[in-house]
Amino acid sequence: MITSTSNNQIKNIIALNKKARERKAQRLFVVEGIRAVAEVPAALLHAVYYVEGFGASAEGSAFISELCAKAPSVLVEEVAKSVFNSMSDTVTPQGVLALVKMQDFTMADVLGTNTGKPAHIVVLESLQDPGNMGTIIRTAEGAGATGIIMNNTTVDIYSPKVVRSTMGSIFRVPHIITSDLAATLTELKEQHNVSVYAAHLKGEKFYDEFDYKGPTAFMIGNEGNGLTDQTASMATSYLKIPMEGQLESLNASVAASILMYETLRQRRQR
Amino acid sequence: MITSTSNNQIKNIIALNKKARERKAQRLFVVEGIRAVAEVPAALLHAVYYVEGFGASAEGSAFISELCAKAPSVLVEEVAKSVFNSMSDTVTPQGVLALVKMQDFTMADVLGTNTGKPAHIVVLESLQDPGNMGTIIRTAEGAGATGIIMNNTTVDIYSPKVVRSTMGSIFRVPHIITSDLAATLTELKEQHNVSVYAAHLKGEKFYDEFDYKGPTAFMIGNEGNGLTDQTASMATSYLKIPMEGQLESLNASVAASILMYETLRQRRQR
Repeated sequence: MITSTSNNQIKNIIALNKKARERKAQRLFVVEGIRAVAEVPAALLHAVYYVEGFGASAEGSAFISELCAKAPSVLVEEVAKSVFNSMSDTVTPQGVLALVKMQDFTMADVLGTNTGKPAHIVVLESLQDPGNMGTIIRTAEGAGATGIIMNNTTVDIYSPKVVRSTMGSIFRVPHIITSDLAATLTELKEQHNVSVYAAHLKGEKFYDEFDYKGPTAFMIGNEGNGLTDQTASMATSYLKIPMEGQLESLNASVAASILMYETLRQRRQR
Repeated sequence: MITSTSNNQIKNIIALNKKARERKAQRLFVVEGIRAVAEVPAALLHAVYYVEGFGASAEGSAFISELCAKAPSVLVEEVAKSVFNSMSDTVTPQGVLALVKMQDFTMADVLGTNTGKPAHIVVLESLQDPGNMGTIIRTAEGAGATGIIMNNTTVDIYSPKVVRSTMGSIFRVPHIITSDLAATLTELKEQHNVSVYAAHLKGEKFYDEFDYKGPTAFMIGNEGNGLTDQTASMATSYLKIPMEGQLESLNASVAASILMYETLRQRRQR
């Protein structure tokens, strides 16, 4: 049992919870909670830590046996209560957390090449709110989106808050981070024939007047500022989401959800 | 200028920020930020506080003159910086906050009786997340919903986080809090001819297969537990939102947004 917060493993987990830079360098991130850890694909598990006494409960003991059956070669460590609390990013820790390897998704994954579906992509530019990011990934799975593309000034997808709010979708929705969004958008349009839509004041048609049955991507901008002019100028088409009352904009995750579900609605109809 | 946190007005603002009970007893709540305070209808302003030096900036001085023109009889007070920081609920205070009177909406307001639109209502049962609550009110304005009904175990709509995330919609979307949700649902159905929908596992038809052009209400349950059986049993119809992948549910505000925007989509078509 690990009893000291100066243990190197513990220090590393605290650093991984706090620093995007560490996560990026080690290609590892932290997943917390019984259900969330159970949803991690076995091949991605790097190590699992549980609080002392966790194995004594029926739930805890079942969890540990299932874990060992599923991923027999993974390091599993018991940790003293005070040490576990210092590792945890949550107010009421559930007593289990895992170190998880980042997946290496390709553009083909994001395009859904092997799924038989036409591309259905959300492109995020400098989105900042972890809750919005997590909700978009979660809704993307529900709406059958093939993947997410984000620029490298978007909030870190592997931060504890984002991971929590994806409800496991982070393992199932292909995503890539690009350092050159303009080049990636050009590739989408020119090499993969994707229609790229921007929700924009320039929009002349409502979002439900376009046909999303072919390869489709929606660009969603920063919460305060929207899309930059440069990125918006790369859209194939501009759409508008109708707004009644005096509202100037919708929440970014709501706008993304309305567009993804309109796509699913159209694709469900034969 | 108020220079002490033991001033009674200051103590009261701190209490109103922290305690739902105080807000309910005084029928007052706190709105913070330059733009948010500017959006408060003049008739609802009870008092405005700004940080020392705020009036010296061009923006601050314009704000104060507009405020005095709009609401000449409202108490406006300057407050020392340390005092203002203790009153503020935000990490980076913008230097202005207002005490605002709660509005008294009626069932007729929520039904949209004077708007000429058929009722388009969201009914919230024990929703807990302030961000979800704020997002639902904001999206409701955009989707042209006529109002919101919530039971009294829903998160307080006047909490600082909810108020912030509504982006001003809280003043424009009629809402009522009911202590007897079952009686209110019966009233909606029997007296006002509203079709009440529940997103539910029992749903046999998808959400876009119903006609929402007549008086419509959507029930949204608690984030973790969904609708209680008793409330769900009062629905006129059960609908389902399709979900691909392994997702078990959508975020509550996303589900509400998809349903409200489907209603607007149908009503826009002639």
